[in-house]
Amino acid sequence: MTGSAFLIDGLQYANWSEKVFRQMREGRLDAVHVTICYHEMFRETVANLENWNRWFERYPDLIRPAGTAEDIRAAKAEGRTAIVFGLQNCSPIEDDIGLVEILHTLGVRFMQLSYNNQSLLATGCYEREDPGITRMGRQVIREMNRVGMTIDMSHSAERSTLEAIEISERPIAITHANPSFWHPALRNKSDTVLKALAESGGMLGFSLYPHHLRDKSDCTLAGFCEMIARTADMIGVEHLGIGSDLCVDQPDSVVEWMRNGRWSKDLDYGEGSAAAAGFPPQPSWFQSARDFPNLADGLAAVGFSASDVDRIMGGNWLSFYEHAFAPMRTEHTETSEQARRSHVS
Amino acid sequence: MTGSAFLIDGLQYANWSEKVFRQMREGRLDAVHVTICYHEMFRETVANLENWNRWFERYPDLIRPAGTAEDIRAAKAEGRTAIVFGLQNCSPIEDDIGLVEILHTLGVRFMQLSYNNQSLLATGCYEREDPGITRMGRQVIREMNRVGMTIDMSHSAERSTLEAIEISERPIAITHANPSFWHPALRNKSDTVLKALAESGGMLGFSLYPHHLRDKSDCTLAGFCEMIARTADMIGVEHLGIGSDLCVDQPDSVVEWMRNGRWSKDLDYGEGSAAAAGFPPQPSWFQSARDFPNLADGLAAVGFSASDVDRIMGGNWLSFYEHAFAPMRTEHTETSEQARRSHVS
Repeated sequence: MTGSAFLIDGLQYANWSEKVFRQMREGRLDAVHVTICYHEMFRETVANLENWNRWFERYPDLIRPAGTAEDIRAAKAEGRTAIVFGLQNCSPIEDDIGLVEILHTLGVRFMQLSYNNQSLLATGCYEREDPGITRMGRQVIREMNRVGMTIDMSHSAERSTLEAIEISERPIAITHANPSFWHPALRNKSDTVLKALAESGGMLGFSLYPHHLRDKSDCTLAGFCEMIARTADMIGVEHLGIGSDLCVDQPDSVVEWMRNGRWSKDLDYGEGSAAAAGFPPQPSWFQSARDFPNLADGLAAVGFSASDVDRIMGGNWLSFYEHAFAPMRTEHTETSEQARRSHVS
Repeated sequence: MTGSAFLIDGLQYANWSEKVFRQMREGRLDAVHVTICYHEMFRETVANLENWNRWFERYPDLIRPAGTAEDIRAAKAEGRTAIVFGLQNCSPIEDDIGLVEILHTLGVRFMQLSYNNQSLLATGCYEREDPGITRMGRQVIREMNRVGMTIDMSHSAERSTLEAIEISERPIAITHANPSFWHPALRNKSDTVLKALAESGGMLGFSLYPHHLRDKSDCTLAGFCEMIARTADMIGVEHLGIGSDLCVDQPDSVVEWMRNGRWSKDLDYGEGSAAAAGFPPQPSWFQSARDFPNLADGLAAVGFSASDVDRIMGGNWLSFYEHAFAPMRTEHTETSEQARRSHVS
């Protein structure tokens, strides 16, 4: 990577601590999109934001909140890691579309329309049937477009994902998943989805969660980077980034929570199994945020140019953030949106 | 008033509508501190903020949200009325100090530590005993000081008010009350409180709610303005503003809600009575926001200079807002606070 390049991770859910924040600095991460909800309702999500406020107060040398691309540039200049909030589920908006703007004001910049299961908005990737975007889903997509919250379909089903791409007036993201041509996990994405995503200006973040990798924990760095090269050939390098899905220091009870929340009485093992229910071990070359430089080296080794490596490692995410997080300007709301933005300045 | 002067109302709780917003424009109000909570818990207060978001979206020509003095200057330049949010009770933070910062991020700039009754933080003006600021109250005052949320003691009891003034590291406000030397209602304030308030740099907003006025609905404009002149002689004109407590178009069920919330089974009439349980009629010279110019004329008629009239009608509130709403800079939190401010820019 070149010295001035941005390093951005499109998704993490660590057991946050000073140790983890120091790993981000050691890995030179300029920004991380962090998950603040899997199954939480609104009030519980606010409690998670309160925890982040305490971490920002306690570790001002390491991290800072970020709601714009400009904040990420400032973080880089200050030698801190910018934290961008996102929801892996729409549970925090409950049945209330007004909570989209409230959560945007609180800094949330990504929301998945569904997490594995059917939601009020869309279908998850583990359901048998996918009836597509719901009535409320159409309204919420429009509201997310309006306020500047990016639609994330990482855990959603095929038809719902294609419809979200079509309905949304702004590009969407698949923050953490891989192509199913490389590893046909239910969570990975078809060529059809990847092409539609790219055609609409969207972004794919490549996941390093072993269940999303060919050969899982034994996946090689070269194999991972060759897969990125094939994807670049298919949809263009400008749509690619990293969304590591790192869950550093999380106990196995957390992956059980991710899979089961409060929705099931039978234990669901998701991509795991009764015999291997916990977090799978990370590949040797990607254990924590300190290993980000390995990815850049791996990309160069499979033939990406220095500028393409920079784009994949963060430049593309930064360009995407640039356009995704500002309120949409429409004739009707322009003045009011300008007011809202300066409201909380 | 001079042409460039600011007109600011330190408190209103109207039945908000396009009609009420147009009255604000007709009265040339540059900013209004609006109440968004009497007894609501956190989630209910968020629902009230959602309603405001809808009004901002619907009436962008008339109103805009404001979180800083700068926003109010912008509103004046744009010919709109700036809306500043405040809580008349601490119920929205429930038992959770982390909600202070969350609500500040959502635009809340004032919070009363108690509303008539004992709260988790302080005592209200209708309690028999006033044990002063509680253990949680001391913590919350420090947190409000840190994030830039102003302590409002309009409905609090004497000792709690004096202790809040002493404990707070930043000036506090009594946004809507009058001196008890003029009209000895339980809600009005003693000379001791007024002097302590002024000595610490605080602000008093004069109320036009008839129960706070000598002769109630029959109070004269001259009598009201002479009272302001006596208060200026006692504590200095620089601490004085208006906090009209206007409740335009509210049905009587709302004053019953203000008084009883969900805390009482017996009907409490507050400053009213069983025979006169509803909202008292406003004085003829102050029926709505359109009558603000009458106050300026009345102040001039009792001998205030043009510049002092400007200060009382809004200049003092603007100066107060200038210092009150920014996060407090401390050695420990400076960088993190700078980050927080730009986070939501």
